[in-house]
Amino acid sequence: MKIAYILFNEITLLDFIGIYDPIKNIKTKKYLIDLDWDLCATQKSIKDSFGLELVVDKVKPDLSSYDMIIVPGGYGTRALQYDQEFISWLQTAKNVEYIVSICTGSLLLGAAGFLKGKLATTNFNEYDSLDKYCREVVKDRIVEDHKTITAGAVASSLDLGLYICEKLIGKEKTEDIRKGMDYHPKEFHITVNNS
Amino acid sequence: MKIAYILFNEITLLDFIGIYDPIKNIKTKKYLIDLDWDLCATQKSIKDSFGLELVVDKVKPDLSSYDMIIVPGGYGTRALQYDQEFISWLQTAKNVEYIVSICTGSLLLGAAGFLKGKLATTNFNEYDSLDKYCREVVKDRIVEDHKTITAGAVASSLDLGLYICEKLIGKEKTEDIRKGMDYHPKEFHITVNNS
Repeated sequence: MKIAYILFNEITLLDFIGIYDPIKNIKTKKYLIDLDWDLCATQKSIKDSFGLELVVDKVKPDLSSYDMIIVPGGYGTRALQYDQEFISWLQTAKNVEYIVSICTGSLLLGAAGFLKGKLATTNFNEYDSLDKYCREVVKDRIVEDHKTITAGAVASSLDLGLYICEKLIGKEKTEDIRKGMDYHPKEFHITVNNS
Repeated sequence: MKIAYILFNEITLLDFIGIYDPIKNIKTKKYLIDLDWDLCATQKSIKDSFGLELVVDKVKPDLSSYDMIIVPGGYGTRALQYDQEFISWLQTAKNVEYIVSICTGSLLLGAAGFLKGKLATTNFNEYDSLDKYCREVVKDRIVEDHKTITAGAVASSLDLGLYICEKLIGKEKTEDIRKGMDYHPKEFHITVNNS
């Protein structure tokens, strides 16, 4: 299982780190040996809206070699969805098994055509912006449609991380990870369409 | 209000980004004009246990000029608490108004002598390690003792971030920030000692 985290300027870092934490715990706890990831972007480092800078592992790699891409949100997505260079690069992931986004990351999936005919969600302020890209916007915290998995705003990243963990290592080990994170969310609804 | 985030190698990034997100939203929403922060460390960049690299703003600044220091946790704290160079640097914060930690960041506060005679908490696996540094370990999610504020494990960083927001901008605006984050935690107990 090889994951590509798709990073960009003006990212919301909690969108990224909220899913990164539970997934990296799979490795910390040695629940899966064959798990790895790269931080991918169109440049060598990226900054959030306040200048916090992260170093990138791979600049514009061919994404077709990954098993999962994870696209966080942030203000940067508003312009990036119309950036042909970025979207063309993202489209190299079109045959990747799992296509995942948090918050407005779904706008980038949409612009790449990955949400055509699918159910999807996004930040609750951006339902209208997502609408043109998908079959139907579902106002849930997590929406899965044939391994295309989208989540709501920022902190839903933690829930999505645990949801991905459950797919990869099952319920019991995921529960261990949740306890280790000391994370106690209220219950929420998930929509899954595999028909 | 000038904040120093104290970073180090083998940090748990969610400890940091979980508190960073609500606090940076104070600025995004312009609730406080006079709010700023630096990412501070003993070197120009730091990495988590999997090599994720963040660029640092200030290398070993005198911490006495800040109004708040925030110290995340992570595996790195286990050795750092005995690293005299690091602890001496941290001690330059001894007169800072707010001394804050998440998870095992409290071990670093303890090693710097900041928890002497105080109530404090930490990661639930490390209560025994914290005991020697403080008056009493309180098994709560957030513990405040005269503006020294410690929190539990990883995801408690989000709760602590909102707790700090409430101090800086009040309940109503903090509630706006929580909603914007789409964060819905179960209720938890906070211990405050100001006597």
